[in-house]
Amino acid sequence: MRTCPQEHIKRATDSNFISTLVKDICKTYEDGRGVNHIDGHNLPRETEILSIVNDLLDVVFPGYGGKETYSLNTIKFSIGEIIARVNIELYDQISRSFRYNCAMSNCDDCNTPEMAEKTVRRFLSALPEIRESMKMDVQAAFEGDPAAKNMDEIVLSYPGLKAITIQRLAHVLYHENVPLIPRMMSEYAHRLTGIDIHPGAHLGRAIFIDHGTGVVIGETAVIGDNVKIYQGVTLGALSFPKDACGKIIKGAKRHPTIEDNVTIYAGATILGDIVIGKGSIIGGNVWLTETVAQGSKITANPPDLTISQRSQTKGV
Amino acid sequence: MRTCPQEHIKRATDSNFISTLVKDICKTYEDGRGVNHIDGHNLPRETEILSIVNDLLDVVFPGYGGKETYSLNTIKFSIGEIIARVNIELYDQISRSFRYNCAMSNCDDCNTPEMAEKTVRRFLSALPEIRESMKMDVQAAFEGDPAAKNMDEIVLSYPGLKAITIQRLAHVLYHENVPLIPRMMSEYAHRLTGIDIHPGAHLGRAIFIDHGTGVVIGETAVIGDNVKIYQGVTLGALSFPKDACGKIIKGAKRHPTIEDNVTIYAGATILGDIVIGKGSIIGGNVWLTETVAQGSKITANPPDLTISQRSQTKGV
Amino acid sequence: MRTCPQEHIKRATDSNFISTLVKDICKTYEDGRGVNHIDGHNLPRETEILSIVNDLLDVVFPGYGGKETYSLNTIKFSIGEIIARVNIELYDQISRSFRYNCAMSNCDDCNTPEMAEKTVRRFLSALPEIRESMKMDVQAAFEGDPAAKNMDEIVLSYPGLKAITIQRLAHVLYHENVPLIPRMMSEYAHRLTGIDIHPGAHLGRAIFIDHGTGVVIGETAVIGDNVKIYQGVTLGALSFPKDACGKIIKGAKRHPTIEDNVTIYAGATILGDIVIGKGSIIGGNVWLTETVAQGSKITANPPDLTISQRSQTKGV
Repeated sequence: MRTCPQEHIKRATDSNFISTLVKDICKTYEDGRGVNHIDGHNLPRETEILSIVNDLLDVVFPGYGGKETYSLNTIKFSIGEIIARVNIELYDQISRSFRYNCAMSNCDDCNTPEMAEKTVRRFLSALPEIRESMKMDVQAAFEGDPAAKNMDEIVLSYPGLKAITIQRLAHVLYHENVPLIPRMMSEYAHRLTGIDIHPGAHLGRAIFIDHGTGVVIGETAVIGDNVKIYQGVTLGALSFPKDACGKIIKGAKRHPTIEDNVTIYAGATILGDIVIGKGSIIGGNVWLTETVAQGSKITANPPDLTISQRSQTKGV
Repeated sequence: MRTCPQEHIKRATDSNFISTLVKDICKTYEDGRGVNHIDGHNLPRETEILSIVNDLLDVVFPGYGGKETYSLNTIKFSIGEIIARVNIELYDQISRSFRYNCAMSNCDDCNTPEMAEKTVRRFLSALPEIRESMKMDVQAAFEGDPAAKNMDEIVLSYPGLKAITIQRLAHVLYHENVPLIPRMMSEYAHRLTGIDIHPGAHLGRAIFIDHGTGVVIGETAVIGDNVKIYQGVTLGALSFPKDACGKIIKGAKRHPTIEDNVTIYAGATILGDIVIGKGSIIGGNVWLTETVAQGSKITANPPDLTISQRSQTKGV
Repeated sequence: MRTCPQEHIKRATDSNFISTLVKDICKTYEDGRGVNHIDGHNLPRETEILSIVNDLLDVVFPGYGGKETYSLNTIKFSIGEIIARVNIELYDQISRSFRYNCAMSNCDDCNTPEMAEKTVRRFLSALPEIRESMKMDVQAAFEGDPAAKNMDEIVLSYPGLKAITIQRLAHVLYHENVPLIPRMMSEYAHRLTGIDIHPGAHLGRAIFIDHGTGVVIGETAVIGDNVKIYQGVTLGALSFPKDACGKIIKGAKRHPTIEDNVTIYAGATILGDIVIGKGSIIGGNVWLTETVAQGSKITANPPDLTISQRSQTKGV
């Protein structure tokens, strides 16, 4: 015998099922774990951070986001408006981050407003240099990819460029010791592109990451100028130093250093605090855990193949 | 000779080109394939499902989504409001799914309203346990990653945590035999994170997936407690049993079982209904199709390398 | 001594810091690189392109996007409305692309309105065929994946299907020599799915890409009918022919041709302008740079493993 949906909805909402359930859920908040409140000192907000990142992308590549039409004569008004907004919004988010840190370390004499103000200024002051840097990245992509028809195509549609731009922004905040926000930015880039570059990694100039899905570049990696990286490359840690209690020690240099003019082809894995010397070429699927002299060309002997002939009747 | 754009637009819209085209397109709908109508019994809507998932993420990690400011004293109101909404909306979507199944199997005596109501209740009742489970996942990520500065960073920016949370929610609906919705949820997680965990997979407690891009975990995989998985790991099927007509048999156990305290490094491929014994360590790029005893440490001998020196004049 | 946040904000916004900074940023625009203006000939807008793609997805799989409820009797009105809108909007975006090309090549006698109009018509006229083609792709996914419960699940939640649909649309514009837009479309698919298929690649019928994260298919790849591709497969270039100045020559055929009924398992890398003959099976992680006869079965001998037993006291 069928019952009517309306009755069910009524029963569902009338019942004390929800009250009891809400009580049960709230009990799980009582230990304060996984709950963002911290006595009113709220964490930075993801939506605000992403909106700031998108504003900054418009400053670095004006007009490409499709929001506004620019002319070189009037561009200063659009940029001024964006910078004025980012200045206030980023100040708010960075203040939250510093207050959060302050609360977490039970410190109460941080002058977080002053810290936030100085940090925002230093961050914004880095924008002209980041823009110059991005021009070189665009040029590197154009020269490195035979499928690139022109530089605008790269700005409009290359995920590697987007990941690198956001990382360069996040990296400045990382060096300013801003908690939480740099990683939120780089995870936004990861979500958009499949390229996971930790904000701590140091990137040189004219970097080109092609396709990029699955690329992982760790916190203490250092990358020189004119480096090309293809999809699926890992610049990772080989092992994590542990303390006497077996807990991982945070922060030690544990990722590779890639010198200038190196190319790393798809799927290569380079692990540990080693050096890939200038001008080296690392082939696809190479697995490296030791330092490599400059000018080396290293290719992995591909796995041996077993080749057989299938019955001609099946699916041929 | 140039013509004026307005003329072109006029011609484009005046012409009977569009009418004819629409007729041609609609002809392709007549076999009913790839058209969502089913006599008014509509499928669940993606936008609603994603909004429900985002509401549930706010319940599991309140305050992190940046939508509201919570205090522990008043959190019950926010959570109550979310649960009341999800209760109605999920009921609607699950009803669509059950009606869909009913229509597909030409059955007409399913009491879909009652089925939907009971399913929603059982699903919502699982939330407190899922939340406890997620706390352990956060702790596991913190202990497993030297780059993690604190637990809030993990909640705010670790893709593995997001993929696992959504999978745990989808898994409950999978076991309730709700059609379509679990897979829509897990594909949402896949889109956000590059981590593809089928809703059917069973995950234990304190699971940590780092970086995660390219991870694939199949429908019948079973994962124990305290398991760590890195980017590019596949827990897949080796082959698909077929019936006499050569059609694949759906549903059979065909993916690995990973026991407690196992670590699987980046790029490892583990295929088939095999067992990785407790406490084992599977190295990067290992390819495994056979059961492994507990406490094993398995590393792939990396591919042999061919090393040569490049001319010192090029790019060094 | 703490200072008040209001003062800081005031100081931040009052100062001439912003004016100076904006001047510095605008100086970096003066070379015109990385700035979208081109004398008022604006590039296509990403937001418009994505909205057009989503409209077209609604035409190819009506009702699945959750926007409207369709019945077979009235579907022509919804489709007519979408096509009428796309006709105008796509005309606008394609005109921008052609004007852009015209401006870039210092040509001033392109009849861009006429070119755009003809292109839009040819593109829209391809929709019925694309829809028939997608039905075969859905069928191929259903037959190829034991986890697929029904075809609607595939339309609703399989990333491979979404990537292929968008590529088939972009491919038509690629052949019409529309600049910029095809790549913007395929990068949208890449962002949603982790599957990077260049709009230039030719795809046959009944193609199934499972999981898909990390798949890369290059510009000059040619794929036959009934081909299955799993996650992490690369159909790439082995090397790029360069001219006398060492610059890469754009456009040459440099990617593989995959004949009918081929299956390529996860992580396989196939490089260069080679042919994989009809009905071949390429195993996981195979690395191929040479042509393969039809009906071949090629598996990579997995890397040798080093297996040791861990101390039973640790983590078991």
